[in-house]
Amino acid sequence: MKKIVEAALVEDGGVHDPISFSLGKQEARGEFIGKEEFVFCGRDIMEMVFKTLDSSLSIDFYFDDGDTIEFESRLGIVSGSAGAILKGERVALNFAQRLSGIATLTRKFVDRIGDTGVKICDTRKTTPLFRCLEKYAVRCGGGANHRFSLSDGVLVKDNAIKIFGSLKDAVSRVREVAHHLLKVEVEVENLAEFAEALALDVDAILLDNMSCEDVRRAVSLGKGKVVLEVSGNITLDNVREYAETGIDIISIGMLTHSAPAVDISFECLR
Amino acid sequence: MKKIVEAALVEDGGVHDPISFSLGKQEARGEFIGKEEFVFCGRDIMEMVFKTLDSSLSIDFYFDDGDTIEFESRLGIVSGSAGAILKGERVALNFAQRLSGIATLTRKFVDRIGDTGVKICDTRKTTPLFRCLEKYAVRCGGGANHRFSLSDGVLVKDNAIKIFGSLKDAVSRVREVAHHLLKVEVEVENLAEFAEALALDVDAILLDNMSCEDVRRAVSLGKGKVVLEVSGNITLDNVREYAETGIDIISIGMLTHSAPAVDISFECLR
Amino acid sequence: MKKIVEAALVEDGGVHDPISFSLGKQEARGEFIGKEEFVFCGRDIMEMVFKTLDSSLSIDFYFDDGDTIEFESRLGIVSGSAGAILKGERVALNFAQRLSGIATLTRKFVDRIGDTGVKICDTRKTTPLFRCLEKYAVRCGGGANHRFSLSDGVLVKDNAIKIFGSLKDAVSRVREVAHHLLKVEVEVENLAEFAEALALDVDAILLDNMSCEDVRRAVSLGKGKVVLEVSGNITLDNVREYAETGIDIISIGMLTHSAPAVDISFECLR
Amino acid sequence: MKKIVEAALVEDGGVHDPISFSLGKQEARGEFIGKEEFVFCGRDIMEMVFKTLDSSLSIDFYFDDGDTIEFESRLGIVSGSAGAILKGERVALNFAQRLSGIATLTRKFVDRIGDTGVKICDTRKTTPLFRCLEKYAVRCGGGANHRFSLSDGVLVKDNAIKIFGSLKDAVSRVREVAHHLLKVEVEVENLAEFAEALALDVDAILLDNMSCEDVRRAVSLGKGKVVLEVSGNITLDNVREYAETGIDIISIGMLTHSAPAVDISFECLR
Amino acid sequence: MKKIVEAALVEDGGVHDPISFSLGKQEARGEFIGKEEFVFCGRDIMEMVFKTLDSSLSIDFYFDDGDTIEFESRLGIVSGSAGAILKGERVALNFAQRLSGIATLTRKFVDRIGDTGVKICDTRKTTPLFRCLEKYAVRCGGGANHRFSLSDGVLVKDNAIKIFGSLKDAVSRVREVAHHLLKVEVEVENLAEFAEALALDVDAILLDNMSCEDVRRAVSLGKGKVVLEVSGNITLDNVREYAETGIDIISIGMLTHSAPAVDISFECLR
Amino acid sequence: MKKIVEAALVEDGGVHDPISFSLGKQEARGEFIGKEEFVFCGRDIMEMVFKTLDSSLSIDFYFDDGDTIEFESRLGIVSGSAGAILKGERVALNFAQRLSGIATLTRKFVDRIGDTGVKICDTRKTTPLFRCLEKYAVRCGGGANHRFSLSDGVLVKDNAIKIFGSLKDAVSRVREVAHHLLKVEVEVENLAEFAEALALDVDAILLDNMSCEDVRRAVSLGKGKVVLEVSGNITLDNVREYAETGIDIISIGMLTHSAPAVDISFECLR
Repeated sequence: MKKIVEAALVEDGGVHDPISFSLGKQEARGEFIGKEEFVFCGRDIMEMVFKTLDSSLSIDFYFDDGDTIEFESRLGIVSGSAGAILKGERVALNFAQRLSGIATLTRKFVDRIGDTGVKICDTRKTTPLFRCLEKYAVRCGGGANHRFSLSDGVLVKDNAIKIFGSLKDAVSRVREVAHHLLKVEVEVENLAEFAEALALDVDAILLDNMSCEDVRRAVSLGKGKVVLEVSGNITLDNVREYAETGIDIISIGMLTHSAPAVDISFECLR
Repeated sequence: MKKIVEAALVEDGGVHDPISFSLGKQEARGEFIGKEEFVFCGRDIMEMVFKTLDSSLSIDFYFDDGDTIEFESRLGIVSGSAGAILKGERVALNFAQRLSGIATLTRKFVDRIGDTGVKICDTRKTTPLFRCLEKYAVRCGGGANHRFSLSDGVLVKDNAIKIFGSLKDAVSRVREVAHHLLKVEVEVENLAEFAEALALDVDAILLDNMSCEDVRRAVSLGKGKVVLEVSGNITLDNVREYAETGIDIISIGMLTHSAPAVDISFECLR
Repeated sequence: MKKIVEAALVEDGGVHDPISFSLGKQEARGEFIGKEEFVFCGRDIMEMVFKTLDSSLSIDFYFDDGDTIEFESRLGIVSGSAGAILKGERVALNFAQRLSGIATLTRKFVDRIGDTGVKICDTRKTTPLFRCLEKYAVRCGGGANHRFSLSDGVLVKDNAIKIFGSLKDAVSRVREVAHHLLKVEVEVENLAEFAEALALDVDAILLDNMSCEDVRRAVSLGKGKVVLEVSGNITLDNVREYAETGIDIISIGMLTHSAPAVDISFECLR
Repeated sequence: MKKIVEAALVEDGGVHDPISFSLGKQEARGEFIGKEEFVFCGRDIMEMVFKTLDSSLSIDFYFDDGDTIEFESRLGIVSGSAGAILKGERVALNFAQRLSGIATLTRKFVDRIGDTGVKICDTRKTTPLFRCLEKYAVRCGGGANHRFSLSDGVLVKDNAIKIFGSLKDAVSRVREVAHHLLKVEVEVENLAEFAEALALDVDAILLDNMSCEDVRRAVSLGKGKVVLEVSGNITLDNVREYAETGIDIISIGMLTHSAPAVDISFECLR
Repeated sequence: MKKIVEAALVEDGGVHDPISFSLGKQEARGEFIGKEEFVFCGRDIMEMVFKTLDSSLSIDFYFDDGDTIEFESRLGIVSGSAGAILKGERVALNFAQRLSGIATLTRKFVDRIGDTGVKICDTRKTTPLFRCLEKYAVRCGGGANHRFSLSDGVLVKDNAIKIFGSLKDAVSRVREVAHHLLKVEVEVENLAEFAEALALDVDAILLDNMSCEDVRRAVSLGKGKVVLEVSGNITLDNVREYAETGIDIISIGMLTHSAPAVDISFECLR
Repeated sequence: MKKIVEAALVEDGGVHDPISFSLGKQEARGEFIGKEEFVFCGRDIMEMVFKTLDSSLSIDFYFDDGDTIEFESRLGIVSGSAGAILKGERVALNFAQRLSGIATLTRKFVDRIGDTGVKICDTRKTTPLFRCLEKYAVRCGGGANHRFSLSDGVLVKDNAIKIFGSLKDAVSRVREVAHHLLKVEVEVENLAEFAEALALDVDAILLDNMSCEDVRRAVSLGKGKVVLEVSGNITLDNVREYAETGIDIISIGMLTHSAPAVDISFECLR
């Protein structure tokens, strides 16, 4: 992350910022204020932004990642060199507003399914270079993580099956190559494919874009034999219904690809 | 961008992807399909993703950046090594879905203000490391760019004014330091501050979070003397009303920080 | 690998090599000769070494990775700029002699266990930065790979168990955190620990430093329930006996940490 | 080295290690134990591995590089964050086991030649990227270093001579180009070539793969006129005999390319 | 700068400096002495050079950047590890001698024009990678900075005008693309072009290689309407005459491309 | 060099150059013109600058590095994308004007000493990061190179002698550490020190800041025994006199630290 923070500061600061430059050695302090209710995420990276600019800045947060922030709450305070504070403010917020947006949306899904015991998971639909950070935000919102890359878990999707020729061939060839600590999951789009998958040596099955009714049917067949995951067109409106099918995992791309940024402002104190 | 694409591929691919590995030298081809109507953006970077994985892949797009894509349209086709295609697909989409989301939202704002001649602009509220790309997406949607960093334009905002002590001091000290090819803009929050700013040696004034009525009043005083920009709480619903005040520029953070990703899928052909 | 090859060439070449420099535009060609019998590994990286120095060099290999090379066999030929050839020769050999050493030692183990169906696996005891390359060499020698890092498979070893307090606690806490596509393996050092492990929700058990007799006993209890791996003090002398216990996997650190380099020379042709 | 250590930790740790992650803020401590007698090398880099992971870890070694470690000796202790310790352990050992292997093998050669005053030297046959570290290990074992790259010393070998056309031409053309602080050494394979080299303006001669008898003859002709180095098929068995010929330097590729790793374990304390 | 300093130290130090190495843990101290009168620049980067080598070195300067140093003055003192001091000395001086050379030459120009109120500016004719540092040296000498890159100010020069077809087309097309905080300056070579430029929507005009007489005429026409800059063949002999024309800015390439290094030595104290 | 060229282009271009951007796909061509007589150096790096921006640009030079260019000569021509040409022009010239300045000054010194057979050498007083390039420029001007770093040649200077305590101790301790292919040179400041050095086991002696008379005396004592180098206050006026003393090498810091840039312009063709 250190390198990403440094690059982000160069991107935003450019080579010679006249305002910071003209502030010289002046001191300042300012507070981050929540402008809506949200789940906070980004404390460490905000701190890293400011410390990277000037390690003598002092940063104090009144909340931890995962905490719910009320409208108009004071989140934390930064004090030290005025030039460094003004240079870091926007970059720190650009990180925190997005990560908190992800945590907040995740929390909404998690709250919606209540005590069903189902896991709300992320996907690989993350911002390039920020996957670990965004998956951390999902955890802060109460969600769980799916695999981190193509290499730490095998998910055989429709495109791969088409290329291998059949689900059976796909599974057997991938098994041969995958080391013995990787599980193999396959994606199916209807109950016929589900039945085919269930008959093979797989550890998990992803039900993609299937109706609640079909999911319930699949659960009745596969529960306990393999891990059952559902994905595709899950919204805050229908997530509860899917959760109640008895599925194990609901994975939601929107958590990371379309969560709106939350509104946080930074206000210097006179 | 080359380095970012390489890092994104490592992030998504990990060190040893069993599926790509087991595909060996098999060939495949697949198409990108628009799953909703949107403004396309990301052609070059999608191409770079695939070419970085395997320079012998062939990629053809049927549309250019900025084109409107209809639901179920075929966007482009990729063919070559099956392993490389499956490794690149998700990363290419992660870029294109976000950039197209920004272009699409920008287009909506631009369409809404019609022939008022006002410029819809982005802000510095961009994803860290992707500012240039996101600003390009804004242009693809018909918008214009604001400054790229703190160094290629001076915008004296409320926090800086507080630290300098007064608007007047802020402007005079920054002018002294800024080289002769940089313009100076100041942010004001009400008509009193606007009047104070107009009396100083400034090139542009940003009216932040002001009502349409106050903006109209400011325009009647400052139009033609300085560039007039408005920002803060601009939505698709009120943007037309602001545009009709006679303002020069409307800048909108949401274009880059909260545009939802558009839905594009990749489907291999048997 | 590109960056590692570039750094290796700088390391070996320094800033100004008088011999290459004084050769100017002279042309040369030379052959790689096997000076003992071995399993070849390193073709692509040798090619990358020369191409990185001078993309106009021509390199032809008469053998593929995994092939057995006889004493005094000609492996391949390089021709083009004499300066580039002399600069690349040692670096190319430093890679190939080590990788071929690993492939050769792996092949010896694989040959020794014959048709027992057991997999000979590597470990994490690899040269820093060269893990992927060394694991590739193991595959060239007929071996299989264990996990690539701490993140693509969970192996709960004695030190972790000590810290967690008990095997049971270790397994349950790690399960909770690991995503649903990772398997969990535990390391045991005797039959009592093996029995304890077998009663838990684990996917594989590693028998560390146990006698053939104890391994046989464990196999009789666990075969088919979990994957069974053996490790510790396995040599060419005893590997057959371990393989015949019915174990699934034998992992051997020596394959990568102590394989002697094979002898390959490079001889220019007049 | 900092960058290599960081890359090695990423290679071994991956992006999300469930074990370290589930340990949270737990503390632990553990000791490195020698599992055979060996010459230690790697103290600083082991420390750098742990400090890079977590600068608050405390590391104490009971021995210095170059010290002889007895079987079952405690080498040093690490304490602090359990997650960081378990993440660093294998990487630290991967460095130390190899470097100590090189130091240990070097010491054996040095001990074998006793007080003959001959220098045991390394070669350029080192692991790519680790040359400086491996040459340091040779010094820890009591050996001396040969040149570090093609640029800090000129060694005209058979391949170069073939390309230049003759030894004489090779030497004169290289002399012309090399700056005045570089010495020029030439490689010869028999006494005829040795005589030819001795008649030229060279600073040192390398006798490659020559019998002890021929080396003795060469020494009688060249001792004191040029530095005399011998190389090729030197083993622990014959090194003493070569040392007694009166040669100045014996260089041995095996020191760095085939030294077996020494056995060191890491054991957490309850 | 940190990366440039690290690379510079590797460039100068190589991989194994025998002198520093043989000094072991010996301590030393030494002083920088001005061997001519000059304006000092380079304090921070000299400190960074030494601290990068060994953070325990102590460095004290008796002067600040911008101070005038008399012949034989002691500039500062370094103490600590002898090896680090000898490794850093030359690199520190290579930076400081050049930067002080630029500051010194700038000061001469500034002194020459006295109280005319004209700004002496640098250009883009800087050493690749050192632009920010060299522009800082110009400020230390009392000069002002021109734009830092092609992106933070628009200067339409003769070559661009030729390609666009006319000055008018060039200005209008660039205005359209440049964001609203960038000023546009055009370069003219005679009074006719000056008149043409003055009639367009430009913020500044650069009079290139024009006689003092023509510059005076241009000033009489454009003063107060646009910023007026002069450049080309300005020397210490004629700068005063140009300054007295009433121009706003005089930019001088020689400040950064041809300032001779000042003479500073480093002398260890016994 | 590739990385330095890329960084230099980013430094000069910034993130969004309005002129290049507004040129779109327009084509252009332009010539480099010598604006004074000079020795050319920089052909390859100029080509790399343009090719890095746009590999489809065509660049043709009419002269080679080392050629003498007459006033108003056309050096070479570039054609292709107008935007890339305008972006590359200044960076290419910033490299070539400096390198040609060094080659030109070196040629003046070389011409001055005529057929005395003395070598004109550079020093370590080079621009950080550009040492190899600047030493290449010295060769283009007819000079020879001194060592490239502290590691490829040993020069024991006054500061090191002070720290070691005596010249004798310095030489013996450095000899012990330096590998057998490095020569050892010592710096002396008067005839007494010269005599002391001559009695030791050194390969070369540098006479620093000594009068021609003293140099002649030293030559009469040491010629043929060791390499004799002179340095310090050598100018175009006195270099001939020093050359005629019979010295072997004259090294001159000014060649690289104070050579004025030569004047080259770039002119687009309509």
